[in-house]
Amino acid sequence: MSYDSDNDSMSESTSIGGNNEPIADPVEFPEGDQFKILIATDIHLGYKENDSIRGEDTYKTFEEILQIGVACEVDFILLGGDLFHDTKPTPYCINKCIGLLRKYCLGDKPINFEILSDQRINFNHTVSKQVNYEDPNLNVAIPVFSIHGNHDDPTGKNQISAMDLMASTGLVNYFGRWEDLSKVEINPILLKKGNSLLALYGLSHMSDQRLGRLFLEKKVSIAKPGTLEEEEFFNLLVLHQNRAVRGPKNFIPPDAIPKDIDLVMWGHEHDCRITPEKVADVFITQPGSSVATSLSEGESITKKIGVLTIYKKHFKIDQVELRTVRPFIFEDFTLDLPNVEMEQQLEKSKKSIRNRVEVMIEKAAELNRIPEGILPLIRLRAHYKHEMQVFNAIKFGQQYVGRVANPEDILKFICISGTKQKKAIFDKTLDDNAFAGPHASRVEDIILRYFEDNKNKLFVLSAKGLTEAVVKYIDTNDDDAPQRIMKHQFQKTFDKLKELSPEEDEIEDCIVNLCNMRSSQNDEEEIREVLSNRGEIKRESVILGSDEEAVTISDDDDRDTGIGPSNSSVTPLPAKGPGSRGGRGSRGGRARGTRKKAAA
Amino acid sequence: MSYDSDNDSMSESTSIGGNNEPIADPVEFPEGDQFKILIATDIHLGYKENDSIRGEDTYKTFEEILQIGVACEVDFILLGGDLFHDTKPTPYCINKCIGLLRKYCLGDKPINFEILSDQRINFNHTVSKQVNYEDPNLNVAIPVFSIHGNHDDPTGKNQISAMDLMASTGLVNYFGRWEDLSKVEINPILLKKGNSLLALYGLSHMSDQRLGRLFLEKKVSIAKPGTLEEEEFFNLLVLHQNRAVRGPKNFIPPDAIPKDIDLVMWGHEHDCRITPEKVADVFITQPGSSVATSLSEGESITKKIGVLTIYKKHFKIDQVELRTVRPFIFEDFTLDLPNVEMEQQLEKSKKSIRNRVEVMIEKAAELNRIPEGILPLIRLRAHYKHEMQVFNAIKFGQQYVGRVANPEDILKFICISGTKQKKAIFDKTLDDNAFAGPHASRVEDIILRYFEDNKNKLFVLSAKGLTEAVVKYIDTNDDDAPQRIMKHQFQKTFDKLKELSPEEDEIEDCIVNLCNMRSSQNDEEEIREVLSNRGEIKRESVILGSDEEAVTISDDDDRDTGIGPSNSSVTPLPAKGPGSRGGRGSRGGRARGTRKKAAA
Repeated sequence: MSYDSDNDSMSESTSIGGNNEPIADPVEFPEGDQFKILIATDIHLGYKENDSIRGEDTYKTFEEILQIGVACEVDFILLGGDLFHDTKPTPYCINKCIGLLRKYCLGDKPINFEILSDQRINFNHTVSKQVNYEDPNLNVAIPVFSIHGNHDDPTGKNQISAMDLMASTGLVNYFGRWEDLSKVEINPILLKKGNSLLALYGLSHMSDQRLGRLFLEKKVSIAKPGTLEEEEFFNLLVLHQNRAVRGPKNFIPPDAIPKDIDLVMWGHEHDCRITPEKVADVFITQPGSSVATSLSEGESITKKIGVLTIYKKHFKIDQVELRTVRPFIFEDFTLDLPNVEMEQQLEKSKKSIRNRVEVMIEKAAELNRIPEGILPLIRLRAHYKHEMQVFNAIKFGQQYVGRVANPEDILKFICISGTKQKKAIFDKTLDDNAFAGPHASRVEDIILRYFEDNKNKLFVLSAKGLTEAVVKYIDTNDDDAPQRIMKHQFQKTFDKLKELSPEEDEIEDCIVNLCNMRSSQNDEEEIREVLSNRGEIKRESVILGSDEEAVTISDDDDRDTGIGPSNSSVTPLPAKGPGSRGGRGSRGGRARGTRKKAAA
Repeated sequence: MSYDSDNDSMSESTSIGGNNEPIADPVEFPEGDQFKILIATDIHLGYKENDSIRGEDTYKTFEEILQIGVACEVDFILLGGDLFHDTKPTPYCINKCIGLLRKYCLGDKPINFEILSDQRINFNHTVSKQVNYEDPNLNVAIPVFSIHGNHDDPTGKNQISAMDLMASTGLVNYFGRWEDLSKVEINPILLKKGNSLLALYGLSHMSDQRLGRLFLEKKVSIAKPGTLEEEEFFNLLVLHQNRAVRGPKNFIPPDAIPKDIDLVMWGHEHDCRITPEKVADVFITQPGSSVATSLSEGESITKKIGVLTIYKKHFKIDQVELRTVRPFIFEDFTLDLPNVEMEQQLEKSKKSIRNRVEVMIEKAAELNRIPEGILPLIRLRAHYKHEMQVFNAIKFGQQYVGRVANPEDILKFICISGTKQKKAIFDKTLDDNAFAGPHASRVEDIILRYFEDNKNKLFVLSAKGLTEAVVKYIDTNDDDAPQRIMKHQFQKTFDKLKELSPEEDEIEDCIVNLCNMRSSQNDEEEIREVLSNRGEIKRESVILGSDEEAVTISDDDDRDTGIGPSNSSVTPLPAKGPGSRGGRGSRGGRARGTRKKAAA
């Protein structure tokens, strides 16, 4: 695989002047005074690693990104979190990452910028406590700077993340990790290149609920550079959070972002909205993930990274389309067969869906991808009116083995309105009707509902703790999570019992009392603390917008709940408007944005 | 922690002259012509990582080893496998290892030897295909050379081991990995320092059965240096195998080791026998593990590493006692209370055991360890005659919380001869008597016996495959092992069915026939192939010697089956002499050596 910097994938360049105003007459950016930064995020190394077709996808695209960095001679690479998909990546995955970073980021290319800030503060949590290119034992050509996301957040023994590991190898400059969760004061990494000054603010992922509350309570601040040329710094903030407006505590309100910030690079959201958008005086660029980790519409938007150039208070972003990304065609399709006899509906439905899929495969083939002929991802959402139109989607997919990368889930049926049909289909999918119902869409819901039943009530453990641990396990393969929660809750009860020291025959009653006294508010806080020192369970999910087309940008492929226009849904979760899910406050990360399709 | 090279822990130095004969009058080793090599093995990083007391033990001792390397200004460090305890070490563990290696092995110290052999052959399986100190992007001060052991052998996707990962970081020169399992021809790494020439032969762990057979079939050979000064090379072989004589196929017969080898550094065996022993014309040094991973007698022998100095055909080994190793006192104790009334036996037994443990704790305190007052490991094997003398060992241990590192398993009762008592105790330990019996000592035995029962017979999967996968999982935390085996066996049956293409109603019969045709010999071979490309399941276990005291050197702490003199045993496995376990040939690694206690 090679990257040609002269190809036409380098397109749309956005140039914006000082004071955050787009400038009609672009300033000339002198070579020696400009920072050239490759911006990318949510690379999710190791996603679907064991899939025989897609197993290497994340590595290939990461390699392409690094090759672009080399070809464009960037000063450094800036990543917005979720470099890894799993909390504990496999040796294969870590090995791949190390191999690629050593191949492309070490070498003799000189570093043409300097660091002005106190590195011991910027990299306080790392072993070396300094930028890698100042380590005399390493020959760094392109430094990589990264925050952590919700997938590679600190976990397990001593809260060591895969990102810490990369920092220890000296291949990544891991920044923006906060220990004090009661308030956040972001100290920037101050960089200087020629006449340009850059203040790089990093805010690694933490619970949206917590961060939202901190913003509301005005406990998030950015430290000014504290130098004479303070006003001359270009202030760049990198974060990895929900961008959607989801009630007062569940997102980062753009107007809460300090006015001094010139540009935000937004990680975590998977759809590419890299063209800077001005929101409440701040420009936001959202590169989006480099591979699709769900078969949702948002993930089908062309994947791009950016080359951000900064000269004094001016910046521009050159967008680079990623060519190794597996083609992904997403379509909604309505089975409108008004003049067809009932007994022929099935056959006609099959035929028209088959034709549609063929067209989609052709579309995919027209995309200019490397290697040529790479199997595409196809997702057709077929909206039906009559059950007669529905057939076995998995069996249907079998005919595309060898032509499509995801034959098992090409097709998804969605019932148009009719709640009765919806209910019928849903019931069919669960063997045990005891758990079936409009809310039981996810394993954690099933667990929670099971234990909420009085006859299955837990006394020492909390059902919420268990469910959150299961979610953490499913989403990031954090297989210690259930154990950590259980250990913590056992210990807590044990400690309280010791404190109360009841007689032997009173112990049981005492435990029941302790259980009843447990405040669910505090319980939730604690669960979050145990599961991650700084971010609680963080998940993508989907809430339907009420007046515009919703786009899923879930980062959990297997958990796609099937989203469509607001009047059609197969998810057993009732369609709700933003804000109506306050009762499920324990799931901070479920917020989801609604947006118009970006011009790809 | 600091290491003082002038302390008195540097003791016993063994000097041996050319032609493998100890020399009375030691040759002088000129500084510029001698290789100075730190030799250590079985460091088992991450062992008991989650234990609140012992969690950091492996890291502390590894740090001490590296500090010794720095203090002694060795040319390089040579490791004999099992640097990691788990197949998939946690991010914390990998992070620790990387941090320590970067701290002690990078730097400006010049490398005073050169490599003469073709590095692409020596390091063919690594990304860089060269020694780390020739990488222009790394500043290596002390190169580390290592083979892999049975704990860090290749596994999972693309057979990537933790050792590969370390090779990719550039911190370890991983050698001696063989792809072709039908024959082994070991190509040496050829090194030259001044007038000394060293041929370093590495043989990473593979199944003892396989390797034993290859030796018998004369399919193991060492490639001569192939240079003019061929005869002048000092030939050093590193391997990680069973050393015990365990029937024709289950060990490495010392007389099979090529005559040209001057010295073998033997990994895998945990007891320290670092003083070179001459066996069939070859010298063998066995440094032993750096931490105890079981509470067996062999592990209680003083832990040492060596500084091996080689000058032309001469070598000597300076032994260095490890001072960070947690004190471990092991004792056998016979409850001989002939003149005590039956009703007083219990109390007297408790009292004398308590006294004994106190003495052992005092003994531990006298060991010169860092930090002072570190909690010791204590294991008392109490041999009893009457059941009256036995009490709850776990409850007994509780009184030593805060004084001993392993209160939960300080005490082990062993019945002297009397098989009746033995059976009674054994039955008590199993809830379900259906599985109880003289042979059901391990989970894999229970699984195997369950499925060997005709009414539980498996047709597509093989019980052997399942048990071996479970063993692999338990011993090295290789949690993919069961899945790999199942996938493989399903696929195999599926492929055969496709080949035979039976009618739909014949499929079931066909599967039964395929199952009956399955040869257990081939089955075992395949299982090994699937579980590891080169080594099958490899485990430590214990077989009682018939005429001398057996010493356990198991590397599976939790699986200590309680070994004692040949006439006393609590293990439900009947005591057998070597070679009598041919029927369980699938477990190549169970072999175990018997030896006299080394002079510590």
